[in-house]
Amino acid sequence: MPQFLTTADADFEPRLTAILSMKREDSSDVDATVAAIIADVRARGDAALTELTARFDRLDLTPGTLAFSAAEIDAACASVTAEDRAALELAADRIRAYHARQMPEDAQWTDATGATLGWRWTPVSAAGLYVPGGLASYPSSVLMNAIPAKVAGVARLVIACPTPDGTVNPLVLLAARLSGVDTVYRIGGAQAIAALAYGTATIAPVDKITGPGNAFVAAAKRRVFGKVGIDMIAGPSEILVIADGDNDPDWIALDLLSQAEHDESAQAILVTPDPVFADRVVAAVEKRLETLPRAAIAGISWRDFGVVITTRDLAEAVEISNRFAPEHLELCVADPEALVPQIAHAGAIFLGAWTPEAIGDYIGGPNHVLPTARSARFSSGLSVMDFLKRTTLARMTPESLAAIGPSAERLAISESLSAHGLSVRARLDRLNG
Amino acid sequence: MPQFLTTADADFEPRLTAILSMKREDSSDVDATVAAIIADVRARGDAALTELTARFDRLDLTPGTLAFSAAEIDAACASVTAEDRAALELAADRIRAYHARQMPEDAQWTDATGATLGWRWTPVSAAGLYVPGGLASYPSSVLMNAIPAKVAGVARLVIACPTPDGTVNPLVLLAARLSGVDTVYRIGGAQAIAALAYGTATIAPVDKITGPGNAFVAAAKRRVFGKVGIDMIAGPSEILVIADGDNDPDWIALDLLSQAEHDESAQAILVTPDPVFADRVVAAVEKRLETLPRAAIAGISWRDFGVVITTRDLAEAVEISNRFAPEHLELCVADPEALVPQIAHAGAIFLGAWTPEAIGDYIGGPNHVLPTARSARFSSGLSVMDFLKRTTLARMTPESLAAIGPSAERLAISESLSAHGLSVRARLDRLNG
Repeated sequence: MPQFLTTADADFEPRLTAILSMKREDSSDVDATVAAIIADVRARGDAALTELTARFDRLDLTPGTLAFSAAEIDAACASVTAEDRAALELAADRIRAYHARQMPEDAQWTDATGATLGWRWTPVSAAGLYVPGGLASYPSSVLMNAIPAKVAGVARLVIACPTPDGTVNPLVLLAARLSGVDTVYRIGGAQAIAALAYGTATIAPVDKITGPGNAFVAAAKRRVFGKVGIDMIAGPSEILVIADGDNDPDWIALDLLSQAEHDESAQAILVTPDPVFADRVVAAVEKRLETLPRAAIAGISWRDFGVVITTRDLAEAVEISNRFAPEHLELCVADPEALVPQIAHAGAIFLGAWTPEAIGDYIGGPNHVLPTARSARFSSGLSVMDFLKRTTLARMTPESLAAIGPSAERLAISESLSAHGLSVRARLDRLNG
Repeated sequence: MPQFLTTADADFEPRLTAILSMKREDSSDVDATVAAIIADVRARGDAALTELTARFDRLDLTPGTLAFSAAEIDAACASVTAEDRAALELAADRIRAYHARQMPEDAQWTDATGATLGWRWTPVSAAGLYVPGGLASYPSSVLMNAIPAKVAGVARLVIACPTPDGTVNPLVLLAARLSGVDTVYRIGGAQAIAALAYGTATIAPVDKITGPGNAFVAAAKRRVFGKVGIDMIAGPSEILVIADGDNDPDWIALDLLSQAEHDESAQAILVTPDPVFADRVVAAVEKRLETLPRAAIAGISWRDFGVVITTRDLAEAVEISNRFAPEHLELCVADPEALVPQIAHAGAIFLGAWTPEAIGDYIGGPNHVLPTARSARFSSGLSVMDFLKRTTLARMTPESLAAIGPSAERLAISESLSAHGLSVRARLDRLNG
């Protein structure tokens, strides 16, 4: 059974604090192993990569077979049913349309002194997307990572996806093709991250690495951060549903379970001012767990990390949601728009009972790569911005330098940076004489 | 003497590659020490913090004196000359005006199915700025970090600044006050980062940490990344100047030295199609080094990391600049605007000979916290975006769910995520009957 809390209870605050600081991930220290793998790939390149792939994925590769061939991708794409392809294409189109709106604009203006100021955006040249293998090899994640990169204008886009025992999800390859990925390498783990960051004889290095992965991938991303850009260190997924009593308990139960079924460490939270409704949702969850294919996983998540909180009103529910800063937030209330301005932190908001979170996972348009584990307090979901960078621009005229240069010189002197001051002074002297 | 390269030389490419991969920082492994310090602060809070401050900064603090009092800040501000204050105020005003233009807009629209999509931006609730102590305690860095945070709407803004032996730069405290910082803690090193990330009895935790620091600070920021947001792991500064022969060699020499004087590991690079001009700049650097107060530092930087590259033309100079992806790029050419579209990577561009890089350090308006060590390939300078996060919004109508829901259901089934599919199906079934 999940934990039940009521805001009116005397022990509510300490219990909530305990839940907020609960560790849902077993962060076994894989850092030393990962450091050794990265060093090995840097030192021996392709040889290390193929050896490690043989060891971890039971797959013998050569430099020539590190990447899927065009014929292999053709064959995989041809094996996908027309219905699956149509669904994937609709998703790709909607994701592309949403992310196209995110493209930021360049700016340039002239200030009162005559100085021209501004900035311009340019794309990352090459990006690598990590796609987990096995059960968690999701074509939707390929779209969600690759399409923003292409919209941003990334010229070279590659995927690293391990294929344990040589198995691959054909939909992953189709998603890669639909979203314009150039190359798909069948490598995974820390060795794939090392190859993407540092390059090998066969694999050219990239500038940015995005995408989810296991503890080894996460530790490797943390290590190569700085050498390349990374998106975020993703943790287990979570959903918080704010629901009034006027909802179908089964809908809400399914929404909670659609997070819980991801991972035993996932977290599903219901916050409602209606205690009777809360009980009905809990009963609906139990009933669905009787038949759900992934009941084993979802049941453990619900038992270990599920939370049901009863509040005095919706305003209090929003306050609690802000404490969680949830990755996914559903507002299943009569007037969801009225609550939005009070939401201080959330990765994505799903408004109204007709917007199940699963729509956002696949086809709504917004990205499904979102900040987990309360990191929505300080970070955003994946977007075109992750594949762009801004260069600031400044141009002084002699007049503008005359106007503001003396202050720059004074500050440089106060910081004991003489050459800074002199570089301004030499120019001012020309003006004055 | 710096290294001299000419693109026409047979060994140009291997020499450039060697320069690009040159390590300028002594990355001594402080990670174990930093891990122990962070664990200590997490376990013992203020007690650990005051003990570590006594040990590293030779300063005895109590929880009550961790922060500067208002009276102490008043006294420090009163000690600043009117001229220095005016210069700092002008800088603050210009930085504020530039960053105000960076504020992104919320968006909302309705698509063809009737679904409402969009996003909204919200500020980080609390941010902590690290300001180095001692020689590198720069008031300009306080402005560059604090003002974007305030423009973004950060409600609580604190500074951690070590005060070795109790010494502090009064201009740092004035800059903190001018930019609206709430509290200045006299703590530094990994222990300050730990306190900001995890909190102590006296110091409330923040959500985002920005600002430069030494190897301990950098390692600590890397470790707490994920628990809080961080800006970047900054390395030694660099400048690349593209100059034609029609420049004053002394101006260019001073611009190169204004990077070199920062740090023995800083790097100054001149790229010019005019070999005679190159020699004149080198001579001007030598001459300025005879009298420059920080000649010891600047001379070592110029000797160890300085580079002079002669190219066939300006187009080739731009190609080389793109290989470096420099933090600062000066375009001292007749028509700098013509080169800008070809610049693929740079933190900040300074256009024309009347725009010395030092203007950007203090008073131009753009931020001086910029990506170093070729990280302009994938990252941007500090901006209001670092203190904001985006929440995506989606609202389906029954009609839009009917239009796109079946595709979401199909993709969910293909990924074996049944509850995802059922959460859509349950709603579609209601529509169908």
